[in-house]
Amino acid sequence: MNSPLPEEEACLIRDETGTQKLVGYIVDVSDPAHGRCHLLVDERHLNRHGALHGGIAVTLLDNASGTTGSLTVDASGKAPFLTVSMNTQFVGSGRAGWMTATGSITGGGRSLVFIDAELRHEDGTLVAKSTGVFKRVPQEKLA
Amino acid sequence: MNSPLPEEEACLIRDETGTQKLVGYIVDVSDPAHGRCHLLVDERHLNRHGALHGGIAVTLLDNASGTTGSLTVDASGKAPFLTVSMNTQFVGSGRAGWMTATGSITGGGRSLVFIDAELRHEDGTLVAKSTGVFKRVPQEKLA
Amino acid sequence: MNSPLPEEEACLIRDETGTQKLVGYIVDVSDPAHGRCHLLVDERHLNRHGALHGGIAVTLLDNASGTTGSLTVDASGKAPFLTVSMNTQFVGSGRAGWMTATGSITGGGRSLVFIDAELRHEDGTLVAKSTGVFKRVPQEKLA
Amino acid sequence: MNSPLPEEEACLIRDETGTQKLVGYIVDVSDPAHGRCHLLVDERHLNRHGALHGGIAVTLLDNASGTTGSLTVDASGKAPFLTVSMNTQFVGSGRAGWMTATGSITGGGRSLVFIDAELRHEDGTLVAKSTGVFKRVPQEKLA
Repeated sequence: MNSPLPEEEACLIRDETGTQKLVGYIVDVSDPAHGRCHLLVDERHLNRHGALHGGIAVTLLDNASGTTGSLTVDASGKAPFLTVSMNTQFVGSGRAGWMTATGSITGGGRSLVFIDAELRHEDGTLVAKSTGVFKRVPQEKLA
Repeated sequence: MNSPLPEEEACLIRDETGTQKLVGYIVDVSDPAHGRCHLLVDERHLNRHGALHGGIAVTLLDNASGTTGSLTVDASGKAPFLTVSMNTQFVGSGRAGWMTATGSITGGGRSLVFIDAELRHEDGTLVAKSTGVFKRVPQEKLA
Repeated sequence: MNSPLPEEEACLIRDETGTQKLVGYIVDVSDPAHGRCHLLVDERHLNRHGALHGGIAVTLLDNASGTTGSLTVDASGKAPFLTVSMNTQFVGSGRAGWMTATGSITGGGRSLVFIDAELRHEDGTLVAKSTGVFKRVPQEKLA
Repeated sequence: MNSPLPEEEACLIRDETGTQKLVGYIVDVSDPAHGRCHLLVDERHLNRHGALHGGIAVTLLDNASGTTGSLTVDASGKAPFLTVSMNTQFVGSGRAGWMTATGSITGGGRSLVFIDAELRHEDGTLVAKSTGVFKRVPQEKLA
């Protein structure tokens, strides 16, 4: 099984937050236009039917989307963005193995940004897709 | 901190699936009209900003919704239901402590069901809400 | 057929905009907490199957929601609010006769507001429901 | 102003239903993979702010999506499809002139289909986009 991770380890964010450590996904900021979130799905991520749990799918889509927003601010991919709302379609059944969510900006302005994301198996088959409204958090609010 | 769990342990589903063991939520089928999903949120469920991760919020909302659908079939709360699509609004910031997602059916027919869910802190403040389309899986498909 | 319109004509907004004249709906600001939008549905509002066209349903839900937002600013119900995103569930089939959409605020802050709306027949049966993200337009932007 | 309509009049559906006559949109089945819905937007389609009314935008997106579903059944583009749920993002402000909504299937099975649509000005700028769940209506139900 090949890993979809880029060779450049500096582009990867691992084990940063509580949820990231728990679920085990890896954030990838190698492409400034598209935040990515990779996960090697195993039985810990499956539901009663042996398929990827919808909540895990949304976790990956949300991270890829938020990272895509953050990358519009700076290359760290960590600038704070809030998820306002998110609509997810569960198009296919997810199975064990590597999976990657990729975000893309589709519109928006200075504060609100529309971001789509797709979650695909390593062979390219679509598992789920999302459209979301995200909000940039002004720096002064974080001071 | 008081637990929101009902006293009747037979109404609770614990540690059943991979994702349930990983995240630690408890499914509650004590009310036949409303599936519930409880979680004692700790640092493993938080994002970079110290708030509940959106993906964990959706995991709880999705479980409460799917359980609500399953309870229309039988009292086990385990009859198979698929999430077709789900729209989530992140209304407030979630913090550590007990949290409960509660599902309610708002419409639908024999196969497709519309289910809303709300995720609230123990003090009743709203964290997130969702509306979803769920699909009953025919028993013959599982044979 | 009884009209659902309040007796107080001053609470009604009629024939104000191009779309309002075209479709014929009536905006009702009699309740400061819930914007309403009434329509006497006839064959001009039906689709190929003889049921209410989904686009007309959304028109009513959107107007009721936006008016609910505007009523948080002043009693005119005309303060400018933009629809950022809206998710609609078509729960039942709509038929000819009076129909009313009613909005309710479920959360939000100074700029973004979450507003739900329900579209019901005069007998109370649910036709469609929506959840939306709306944005207050600052007055200085309109100067 | 150039019209976006294809030369082949046989591919166009005009003035068929009540809502179509009222709003004036034209359904275009010239591409079997993408249902289209065109409208020459004028003041009848505008809101209080002089921009395209959100309900009219959704009317066009819904028609393009449903037609895309119908085209999977036969070339008439009239096979019955129901809109189960639809999420719309209002990405840009719509102005007077020709506008076209275009649908694309992104997944689904025998009964439920996921269909995206985009609404663009004649110059290609994006006005709104939608993702929806649509349901094929079995022929026997119509007999």
